[in-house]
Amino acid sequence: MVASSELPHHHQTTLMAKSTSRNGNTKPTSSTCLFLGGAFSALLLVWGLSSVTTPIPNQNNLNLTPTENNAVPTNPTPDLRFDPPDRTFYDDPQIGYTMDNKVKNWDQKRQDWLRKHPSFLAGAKDRVLMVTGSQPSPCRNPVGDHFLLRFFKNKVDYCRIHGLEIFYNNALLHPQMFAYWAKYPVMRSAMMAHPEAEWIWWVDSDALFTDMEFTLPLHRYNNHNLVVHGWPQLIHEKRSWTGLNAGVFLIRNCQWSLDFMDVWASMGPQTPNYNKWGQILRSTFKDKFFPESDDQTGLAYLIAMEKEKWADRIYLESEYYFEGYWEEIVGQLENITKRYDALERRVRRLRRRHAEKVSESYGQVREEYLKDGGFGKGSLRRPFITHFTGCQPCSGKYNEMYTADDCWNGMKKALNFADNQVMRKYGFVHTDLLDNKDVSAVPFDYPQTDDLTLHSGNNRLN
Amino acid sequence: MVASSELPHHHQTTLMAKSTSRNGNTKPTSSTCLFLGGAFSALLLVWGLSSVTTPIPNQNNLNLTPTENNAVPTNPTPDLRFDPPDRTFYDDPQIGYTMDNKVKNWDQKRQDWLRKHPSFLAGAKDRVLMVTGSQPSPCRNPVGDHFLLRFFKNKVDYCRIHGLEIFYNNALLHPQMFAYWAKYPVMRSAMMAHPEAEWIWWVDSDALFTDMEFTLPLHRYNNHNLVVHGWPQLIHEKRSWTGLNAGVFLIRNCQWSLDFMDVWASMGPQTPNYNKWGQILRSTFKDKFFPESDDQTGLAYLIAMEKEKWADRIYLESEYYFEGYWEEIVGQLENITKRYDALERRVRRLRRRHAEKVSESYGQVREEYLKDGGFGKGSLRRPFITHFTGCQPCSGKYNEMYTADDCWNGMKKALNFADNQVMRKYGFVHTDLLDNKDVSAVPFDYPQTDDLTLHSGNNRLN
Repeated sequence: MVASSELPHHHQTTLMAKSTSRNGNTKPTSSTCLFLGGAFSALLLVWGLSSVTTPIPNQNNLNLTPTENNAVPTNPTPDLRFDPPDRTFYDDPQIGYTMDNKVKNWDQKRQDWLRKHPSFLAGAKDRVLMVTGSQPSPCRNPVGDHFLLRFFKNKVDYCRIHGLEIFYNNALLHPQMFAYWAKYPVMRSAMMAHPEAEWIWWVDSDALFTDMEFTLPLHRYNNHNLVVHGWPQLIHEKRSWTGLNAGVFLIRNCQWSLDFMDVWASMGPQTPNYNKWGQILRSTFKDKFFPESDDQTGLAYLIAMEKEKWADRIYLESEYYFEGYWEEIVGQLENITKRYDALERRVRRLRRRHAEKVSESYGQVREEYLKDGGFGKGSLRRPFITHFTGCQPCSGKYNEMYTADDCWNGMKKALNFADNQVMRKYGFVHTDLLDNKDVSAVPFDYPQTDDLTLHSGNNRLN
Repeated sequence: MVASSELPHHHQTTLMAKSTSRNGNTKPTSSTCLFLGGAFSALLLVWGLSSVTTPIPNQNNLNLTPTENNAVPTNPTPDLRFDPPDRTFYDDPQIGYTMDNKVKNWDQKRQDWLRKHPSFLAGAKDRVLMVTGSQPSPCRNPVGDHFLLRFFKNKVDYCRIHGLEIFYNNALLHPQMFAYWAKYPVMRSAMMAHPEAEWIWWVDSDALFTDMEFTLPLHRYNNHNLVVHGWPQLIHEKRSWTGLNAGVFLIRNCQWSLDFMDVWASMGPQTPNYNKWGQILRSTFKDKFFPESDDQTGLAYLIAMEKEKWADRIYLESEYYFEGYWEEIVGQLENITKRYDALERRVRRLRRRHAEKVSESYGQVREEYLKDGGFGKGSLRRPFITHFTGCQPCSGKYNEMYTADDCWNGMKKALNFADNQVMRKYGFVHTDLLDNKDVSAVPFDYPQTDDLTLHSGNNRLN
């Protein structure tokens, strides 16, 4: 699966920009899954049962940007030991975890569960579960599993820093739904296993976080149920199957999403219509060069051809690297490092050492200095997610557009670039992005002046 | 490194048993690091700054067993965006992350940090950071990285279910501290990067959680700073280097631990005394069959020979599988599954489907039915941690006592056994412990009767 996520220049606006008319449907309709307004009213009633009082965030005007949010409302810690005997959807024999099980009124069922688990209700609106995974068996590529391990570590690092949960799946839940189709049964199961999560965030095994500080601007997606990296004109006008990339997406845990995934997955290999869908997709999206029905083109098809039915709830994000194409990113990493180092030399607060758990507060400070530069190609901003589309680290069958060195060295660089942001909080950095092994201790107040350099192999600088 | 953790029969008491006289030093002394009593007093003063009121747990009599703890006090969520400008140890140029940097008054410094970050103070007493890791480069064993990936996934699963944080390190922080010595610089860094964590829990890359419900009985360790699986008579009387296993340990984030790790690591390959220590350890522990100084024998030496200085603060845990020897466990896994299935047929509450996040409450219910059976070999209780000592999945150079099949099939079985406890919450199980790939959907109210069986490859049972 090859996809370009090159960012068109006219979309290089800043993160602070409001969503454009492209995604500008801001009035909730009856088809929305935004049920938590009701849930928060319930919170006011239920909360009396608990011994904790907590400020209830204003749900109507929640439009925080990362930098505005200095005073985060303090919610109670979820209570992992409280599951009252009250009947919930789990006790209904008609409800199952598999794709073929049709659930109705899921929004109501989730809300009921949350009301019965009040410690999860506060904070539910922004709760994200990241889901990723890979095949059950060892990779054919000799370095494949090593890369998968490092990609997974990177995601765990991101989740630890931001307080998200992560689930790695390596079981094939539906024997016929292989390759890119395998994620849908996992998403379906994860929604049912995690009624506390408002969003499920699928991130492919070959994608990594290259900005460990950036936080998802969830307030943008209040009126949407599915967020994917893409450009409407490439889908609607050019009919390109690379008008979006389905390797990273955020989907709301709600009835709309269950219904949508049913329709989406009905193009998959487990159905008698698989070949027919392959033909339809290929004839609709002329640049699609392979005959099989795939989930990415399937999504583009639903957006293009069933626009009135689905597209209003699908946010095509292109204003930052919600998912970025590695080939346009990897060559920039060293220059990005230099830009960030120069910024830290200038701003003492950004050089300040700190506990890893408060890293988000430094992200907020840094945002002030970055926001005017934009997010696009050439902005020298750390890209949020870098996706090695076409490299296929596990099978090793990379697209013939690339060489093995392009792919594997690109991954090393990106992984070490990201790891430097993590290891810095532990006092170390990789001095050479192509060298996994050698790290150097970071001196106090680094980087202070231009002539202060780190020496590879000497970890006793401090 | 080979170690037996076979549990002597007279130690097969239940988890509920009080600590024995072996570890029975229960009066705090001035050398203890239990500084959080003071911190919690401070909490009462500082908390007024926050808009949250929360019950303060009684610190003096905190002796909760997993089953007694039905009403967990609700703490606020840690605030990831709050790092006030007040000076902390991070602003002291004399303090560094590396092993050779001597920190003094760490307990006071950590306490100061916590007082300045009140959302982290509540809950600090029991906060655990799990740390694990492996070498920076790909494994020599072709399936090595695949196993490391699955072992890591297992740890992430455990941490997600229990609300712990996890950090995977694959950088060599000190170039001379290789192999088993590599973890000490990581622990040192992690303590400084995580002042919010009271405990750092090292778990080797080749160890996995085979009871996903069990929670650490932290109340047992109130008066100790280091917890390791071991038997005092094997260390003090028999002078066996396998009298403990250093592959899994819990160490308190405090000055005692920094001092202890300094002494411990002074036997390592980065020092001029490395060969001398190899000779001393080998002459002290006669069953040690290799000449190099290693961390496990070094720990046994400090317990045996500097008893009065250190041993009072070291808890040798042998009453449950804090770390279990795989060879005595793997053959039991199928019988353990049968025992747990039989229990679930009998107890409807244990069959009840539920959200993954409230799994601990089911662990508490199950504990009632398990506690009388004990934890030892033959108890058919799920072992907490299974450690594949001697198998060396990454290098592939397993001890000649074993065959490749023993090791790799043992790992598959243990990983799938553990994964079944996780996947069950997502509606699926592996029907064959040796088969990673095929899973079956779990029917509603499973397992209800003896004749209800799962059919591999058919995931549409429900």
